[in-house]
Amino acid sequence: MIGLFDSGVGGLTVLKEVAKRLPEYSLLYLGDTARTPYGNKSPQVVASYGLQAARFLVERGARVLVVACNTVSAVGLEAIEQAYPSMPVFNVITPAVEVAARVSSHHRVGVMGTRALVASGIYQRLLAVHGRYQVTAQAAPLLVPLVEEGWLDKPETKRIVKHYLTPFKQAQVDTLVLACTHYPLLKPLIASRISRRVRVVDPAEATAIALEKWLTQNPETASTLSKGESRLYVTDLTPHTETIARSWLKRTITLERVSLD
Amino acid sequence: MIGLFDSGVGGLTVLKEVAKRLPEYSLLYLGDTARTPYGNKSPQVVASYGLQAARFLVERGARVLVVACNTVSAVGLEAIEQAYPSMPVFNVITPAVEVAARVSSHHRVGVMGTRALVASGIYQRLLAVHGRYQVTAQAAPLLVPLVEEGWLDKPETKRIVKHYLTPFKQAQVDTLVLACTHYPLLKPLIASRISRRVRVVDPAEATAIALEKWLTQNPETASTLSKGESRLYVTDLTPHTETIARSWLKRTITLERVSLD
Repeated sequence: MIGLFDSGVGGLTVLKEVAKRLPEYSLLYLGDTARTPYGNKSPQVVASYGLQAARFLVERGARVLVVACNTVSAVGLEAIEQAYPSMPVFNVITPAVEVAARVSSHHRVGVMGTRALVASGIYQRLLAVHGRYQVTAQAAPLLVPLVEEGWLDKPETKRIVKHYLTPFKQAQVDTLVLACTHYPLLKPLIASRISRRVRVVDPAEATAIALEKWLTQNPETASTLSKGESRLYVTDLTPHTETIARSWLKRTITLERVSLD
Repeated sequence: MIGLFDSGVGGLTVLKEVAKRLPEYSLLYLGDTARTPYGNKSPQVVASYGLQAARFLVERGARVLVVACNTVSAVGLEAIEQAYPSMPVFNVITPAVEVAARVSSHHRVGVMGTRALVASGIYQRLLAVHGRYQVTAQAAPLLVPLVEEGWLDKPETKRIVKHYLTPFKQAQVDTLVLACTHYPLLKPLIASRISRRVRVVDPAEATAIALEKWLTQNPETASTLSKGESRLYVTDLTPHTETIARSWLKRTITLERVSLD
C-alpha cells in the first residue's frame, strides 16, 4: 500500500491528487488530528511525530511512504529515512522545488509556508542545487485556521491573504509555492491577488506526478502494491473534522480513529 | 505547590492573576505546547491530555490543582477529580459562572469559547443551578491564532471580533464571559465593540479570587504549600513560544521543556 500522512486533514489535498492520478492503488492515510497543527512546533517535536506516523503506516502495510505534510517534509524527513532505509519515501518539498526551479522565469521564488518550514530554510538549500535563486519565504500561520474554519472567501481572509502576499509582491517573485497543505484551498483567492505572471505551484500536484512517474519507472515495486479500497485514519475524530474532510474530498468518506501510543 | 496547566501558553494569563493575588506561593505551570491547541479536539482526547498534565504536576509536588484551560475545565474535570479524589481541583469555569450569575442584570449571558467548550453546554448547565438564564454560546476559534500571532489590534482582528460578537449583540446579552485563556488579551478590543452596559467577565481573575478565598478558609492546606520560586514547564519550546510568554507576563521567564510520555 501507499501510505500518506499529515499533521491533520490538510494532507487530504495530497491524497486527492494521488488518487486522481493513481486511482487503482489502495491508499492508507493518517492525519494526526489529536496533535494538529505542527506548523508552529519545534523541529524535534515535529520529527518525532512524523516518525510515529511513518511507523504506524508501515505497521499497517505501507510499502511506499508519502510525507504529505510540508512541515514534516522540511524538518522530519531524515529521521524517517534513517528508520526505514530501504523504503521509498516521498515528500512534498522536493517535487515542488523541481517544478519551481523549472517554471521560474527570473529565478525569484516565493515560498509561503508554516513558521517551522520557513525557519528550516529548506527551499533556499534545495533551490541552490538548481542554480542561483532569490528566495523569499514568508510564514502565513493564520491561513491554516482560516481554511479549517471554511472561511475560504470571506473579506477577512482576503485581507489576511493580502497581508501575507506583501513581501512576495515587494520581492517581485515570478513563482509562488504554496508550501502548506491547507493553502491550495485558497489558491483562487491567492492567484487573484498577485500578478497573473506569477506561477503558483501546488506541491500536492507536483508530488502526485513524481510518485506516478516513479511507479512507472519501478514496476517491480508498483506490482507489489495492493489495489482496491483506501483507508483513512485520524488520531482524533470530531464532527468538525469529518465535515472538513468531506467538503475537501467532495465525497462521503469514513474516518477511523486510532491511537499512536 | 499550586499546580496550574493549560493546553499551551494561554494559561499564563491565569498564572499571572494567581501570582498577583498570591505572590508568596510557589507555582508550578505546565503548558502542553507540543499538542496545543485543545479547543477543536474531542472531549475524549482533551480529557486524556488533561489527566496527563494533572499527573505531571502532582508528581512534581502540586498539592492544589488549577485547571487553567477552559476546554479541559469543560470536558476533562471529572477524570482528574476521579484520579485525585482528595486533591483540591480548581477550574476556570465554576468561578466565572458565579460571577456571571451575580453581575448579570437581565439574566442574558453570552459565552465566547472554544468549539469543544461550546459543544459541552457546560455554561448552560452550571448557570441553571443559579436560576433561569438565557445563554448564548459562540465558538470563536480564530481568536486563538490571532492572539498567538500578536495581532491584538490589527484591522483584521477587529473585523473577526466583530463577526463573533454579532450573535451576542442580537441576543442582547448583558454579560459576556471570555471563556478561553487567550481572549482576555483581546478584552480592550472586545469591550470597545459591544455596549458599555455589557459586563465582560474574565475567568482568570474570578479563578484567582476563588483560589485566594479558599486558601484563606483552609489555612491548614495553605500552610503546607511551599513558598518561593515558581517553575514553568512546556512540552515543546520554540523561540515563538518564549516570545509570547514573555510579552504576556511582561517579564523575563525561563520555560523548561519536559515530556509527558
